[in-house]
Amino acid sequence: MALNTHPFDPLNPEEISRSFQAAEIVRPHFVGRDVNFRVITLREPPKSQMIPYLEKENHKQATDQAPTRCARVEVVLENQSGNNELFELLVDLDNNRVKKKQHHKGKHSYIDAEYMKKVEEACLANPDVQEEIRRLELPDGATVIVEPWAYATDGTNDMTQRVTMCWFYLRLAQNPDANYYAYPLDVCAEVSEKLKVTKVYRLPTNPHERIHNESRPFDRRRIHSQALSEYHPDLRPGPRTTTKPYQVVQPEGPSFHIRENHLSWEKWTFRVGFNYREGLTLHDIRYDGRSLFYRLSLAEMFVPYGDPRSPYPRKAAFDLGNDGAGLNANNLKLGCDCLGTIKYFDGYHNTSSGEPLKMPNVICCHEQDDGILWKHTNFRTGNAVVTRSRILVLQTIITVSNYEYIFAFHFCQDASIFYELRATGILSTVPTDIDHTEKIPYGTVVAPGVLAPYHQHLFSLRIDPAIDGHANSLAVEESKAMPFGDPSVHNPFGVGYVTEQRIIEEEGGFDLDLTKARVFKFINENKINPITNTPVGFKLLPAYSQMLLSHPDSFHAKRSEFGQHAVWVTRYEDDDHFPSGKHTMQSSGGDGIASKINKRNATGDAHSVRNQDIVIWHTFGSTHNPRIEDWPVMPNEKMRVGLKPVSFFSGNPGLDVAVSTQEKNKSALYKEDKAADVCRHSKL
Amino acid sequence: MALNTHPFDPLNPEEISRSFQAAEIVRPHFVGRDVNFRVITLREPPKSQMIPYLEKENHKQATDQAPTRCARVEVVLENQSGNNELFELLVDLDNNRVKKKQHHKGKHSYIDAEYMKKVEEACLANPDVQEEIRRLELPDGATVIVEPWAYATDGTNDMTQRVTMCWFYLRLAQNPDANYYAYPLDVCAEVSEKLKVTKVYRLPTNPHERIHNESRPFDRRRIHSQALSEYHPDLRPGPRTTTKPYQVVQPEGPSFHIRENHLSWEKWTFRVGFNYREGLTLHDIRYDGRSLFYRLSLAEMFVPYGDPRSPYPRKAAFDLGNDGAGLNANNLKLGCDCLGTIKYFDGYHNTSSGEPLKMPNVICCHEQDDGILWKHTNFRTGNAVVTRSRILVLQTIITVSNYEYIFAFHFCQDASIFYELRATGILSTVPTDIDHTEKIPYGTVVAPGVLAPYHQHLFSLRIDPAIDGHANSLAVEESKAMPFGDPSVHNPFGVGYVTEQRIIEEEGGFDLDLTKARVFKFINENKINPITNTPVGFKLLPAYSQMLLSHPDSFHAKRSEFGQHAVWVTRYEDDDHFPSGKHTMQSSGGDGIASKINKRNATGDAHSVRNQDIVIWHTFGSTHNPRIEDWPVMPNEKMRVGLKPVSFFSGNPGLDVAVSTQEKNKSALYKEDKAADVCRHSKL
Repeated sequence: MALNTHPFDPLNPEEISRSFQAAEIVRPHFVGRDVNFRVITLREPPKSQMIPYLEKENHKQATDQAPTRCARVEVVLENQSGNNELFELLVDLDNNRVKKKQHHKGKHSYIDAEYMKKVEEACLANPDVQEEIRRLELPDGATVIVEPWAYATDGTNDMTQRVTMCWFYLRLAQNPDANYYAYPLDVCAEVSEKLKVTKVYRLPTNPHERIHNESRPFDRRRIHSQALSEYHPDLRPGPRTTTKPYQVVQPEGPSFHIRENHLSWEKWTFRVGFNYREGLTLHDIRYDGRSLFYRLSLAEMFVPYGDPRSPYPRKAAFDLGNDGAGLNANNLKLGCDCLGTIKYFDGYHNTSSGEPLKMPNVICCHEQDDGILWKHTNFRTGNAVVTRSRILVLQTIITVSNYEYIFAFHFCQDASIFYELRATGILSTVPTDIDHTEKIPYGTVVAPGVLAPYHQHLFSLRIDPAIDGHANSLAVEESKAMPFGDPSVHNPFGVGYVTEQRIIEEEGGFDLDLTKARVFKFINENKINPITNTPVGFKLLPAYSQMLLSHPDSFHAKRSEFGQHAVWVTRYEDDDHFPSGKHTMQSSGGDGIASKINKRNATGDAHSVRNQDIVIWHTFGSTHNPRIEDWPVMPNEKMRVGLKPVSFFSGNPGLDVAVSTQEKNKSALYKEDKAADVCRHSKL
Repeated sequence: MALNTHPFDPLNPEEISRSFQAAEIVRPHFVGRDVNFRVITLREPPKSQMIPYLEKENHKQATDQAPTRCARVEVVLENQSGNNELFELLVDLDNNRVKKKQHHKGKHSYIDAEYMKKVEEACLANPDVQEEIRRLELPDGATVIVEPWAYATDGTNDMTQRVTMCWFYLRLAQNPDANYYAYPLDVCAEVSEKLKVTKVYRLPTNPHERIHNESRPFDRRRIHSQALSEYHPDLRPGPRTTTKPYQVVQPEGPSFHIRENHLSWEKWTFRVGFNYREGLTLHDIRYDGRSLFYRLSLAEMFVPYGDPRSPYPRKAAFDLGNDGAGLNANNLKLGCDCLGTIKYFDGYHNTSSGEPLKMPNVICCHEQDDGILWKHTNFRTGNAVVTRSRILVLQTIITVSNYEYIFAFHFCQDASIFYELRATGILSTVPTDIDHTEKIPYGTVVAPGVLAPYHQHLFSLRIDPAIDGHANSLAVEESKAMPFGDPSVHNPFGVGYVTEQRIIEEEGGFDLDLTKARVFKFINENKINPITNTPVGFKLLPAYSQMLLSHPDSFHAKRSEFGQHAVWVTRYEDDDHFPSGKHTMQSSGGDGIASKINKRNATGDAHSVRNQDIVIWHTFGSTHNPRIEDWPVMPNEKMRVGLKPVSFFSGNPGLDVAVSTQEKNKSALYKEDKAADVCRHSKL
């Protein structure tokens, strides 16, 4: 391991090259075959090795033995029958050797952008597709766009071979940034692993169609004004000019200190990680030196569409497992994606030939003002004390075809953490020809002939707590009215209420319950707060969300599993980062979080989770029944999950934040705009 | 009406004087009696008169007839038996005459600060109280503080007379800003309307005590370090110095234009109002000239405590009805309570002798950056378009004894509105002497001998929609899985889901249901969006909260009523602003929103609410089981309610917001801090 490398650091370019070289050692096994390097990433060290390492590190003691530096490598090769095979290799970088090699039979790697381009080309070159396009009798100058999607398993195809769904759109304007999602065509094609177009057919365009309909020309009544469907400024009239500049100035620089991937800010310390799948990860999160979380990350997301008509049930994306939040991370631009003084982190991935690939500015770090942290005015003296809340933001933004997601961890001075998620981008659309007397019950017409189908976004936030240590428990607390009229209970006026707490003993999934103000806490039963006399802990402020709507027997449900419950607890296991299984591409289900728990329980290997090293998985999201106001580009929809200390400290951890003063804040007074054109009429 | 006065403007000082003078006309009715002017406020004009007025005004037509300018005046007088009587007068300011006079028998005005001071004095001067204090054997130099509270009806006293509960605290340090809530004493007194101390007793200090216990000295073991309980910077060690300055600069000024109480910003227009009870109110809210809301305001809040032991059931505050969000509004300071370029609004109230009383800076208005509004990257061209979200904030902060509330309306460029509420300040405390083997199930020990009892904060946000007109309906929409396996329903893969909508026909209260993603929409059934083919509307993004825990038969429940359900709909009526009744001080219930609806239903006068002028009341809040981290001053707890357009526009209303550029935003790049003291250890 290089002198400057921390065990949690992502692989650096030199290590990627070295992993590639090490993986090349296996080349003799694949003589004459084209090795496609899909993944060369850090295999995070076993926690059992990291715990003593981090303890010493955080106590500023010499860390005499770092865990072996390992890479996890995924390669895809064509076998003799021309089908792809997926291999996973564990490469020991300290000793330059392959430690383990595994063939994942029938599994697929994440979406291969290079391959998808070939699918588009093959699709457009196919005579049947060309014939179908001819039948559309398209307007002159229009361009047909093929948008390949991963196939969401529906039980009607062999999933050991890759199948790609091709959706068709029209770009009417010449500008390559014209919004082709405004012109979904009713053509559909399926492309095989070997780039053969296996099926070309028409899509249903109204709720009564059950079978793929007849070819028919593109309906010109669907051609509509650019004003309704274009978002790119080059294709729109000039923007509003009323928004005046707003700048954030930090004359003494930011309050954070960053050295490589280590960040310290306002009593917080943690390490920033990044990988192709989860994107941003956070490690060894401490406040004032006390351990809070071993690791925080978004673990998965699932976006199933609710349109029941074939072939739409094949639209259901695992945007982490299939696409990769890291792979699709935006290159963030100064002054665009955040304000103030900004630190950008680069990421590294690998090319298909195994070379390091730099991904610039995939994470940004900056501070924000967040209004008032706390205030009190002593009404007897009239003296007010007010502090402002500063937050530290770690943000990453991904583009997955039409959609954008903005993921941000917010660290607060009161030792709370928020995970804020914004959905934006463009709705996925399908064609419709319903008239004004009809309503489609599973979609919204957002422009002439454009249906934005209902869908859900379900996220799994993986929380690996280390609350003052690694033996933690999940407690469920509820607020309940005391019985009224029961002589054995002293509640003479019927106003009493109490909290009841139960500690979860076994792995499982749990639901929220507003009516009981149900709260999930991660506690350390071995550490009792001397003042409150209760265990130290953190609580989850969930994002209240509807769970998966698909039927439990559907492939959607079997494949997503984590979407069944809002809060899951499992015993920690190394490399267990995947609540819908490691391989989600065309997965058929049964290897998600519920199945793993059920298997352990069925085999008598049930994991106790009380006073153990546990992991909490919070499922949240939105049932997104599009509004027309989400078109042609969606104003962000915000979701927020919080983690707050409960009985962890001896008081408000933000108590020592300095009071807010005009001297430091330099605000300005508004001068009334006497000349403003304000509509005002007096009585005549 | 003065030439410059708008019908929604609060009374100006001249009008307050005039109302006072007009009210004086009634003096002959009260010869020789001391008239205590409690309220001189605008009586908002009848909506039937305002609708045509506003329509003309917004279409820039001459408004030929403004409604009569009226004041609502409340006076309190002592009657011959020495008891207070509450009168309400309606004063016609255009004709300087009293239009109506009403005696509210047995009702009380809001909390009278002057009277409360007299209560404190009377209490401390009372020999029984002094004897009880002597028995406490207090440390030398300690000051006893009496905190008078309104009496929450519990059925054990005559509520037609005012009764004040006096809680006792100790200020140990000499500094008058020392936090006396850290030393709650177990003494309690009740004071009559005529300032007689009617009872002095001891408070229960552990969960087993049922009767008021014996006098005992103050337990010196409760004296603890200032570090645990002081929040004032003069009483604490120096603050953290790591937080660097953060300034908001608006070189071209803010984007808003304000003229008196009329505000225009980014296509929004509305009027700002203020009154003693609700504080900040907003009127005639339009976007791009289209009507959205007639009025928005916080209508009530209820804070019942969950400790069942007498006399704690008497702790339950109506912070609007009893205290007044306007009366208790903070004088906001530049550079402390907000950042950037700030407009402050003053409020006016009246003295007890009827003179105008200026309340400076009770509302602030400023802009904030709110991250990304929308973004899309065309993955085919690599071109990213990103806009930042600017929001307009109207904020007011109130102090109600120990607690602070920060109320803010956020206006967004995408035509959504958020109501953000932050709770901060100091927990209300009671004494405890439990030892470390015990846990009190309805409170948290936050410092030695200091119990912070569980309580709820329940807010009622009053939403008076005017969605493209005043005839609106409340629609309840749910997302439901389609049946799977039912041959009559086409759902072959079990993934289909639909929305079902029902329009509410009659007044009533409704609950949230996460499992159905239940959404409440305010729609105008007379205006159909030509693209979506559905009525124009706005939807409520509720703050998911537990409702009132007190038993339905308790006085708490009878008095609060709105706390039973999350969403209420009623037919609009002038002056109907009070979901717990107009007079909440020592109210005994039965005049809240539920009772009114029930009465109308029982008398055959049920109000249809479909396609009518309706009002929506959203109940939300928190079940606040204190954390020790909320002590000695609470880091803000945020709640958020949203209002978003649904099928109201023809697309994203923020589509024309200019793209974000470094030229305008002038962000800075962070330079890595090589010298930072970062904990990093390499392998030896």
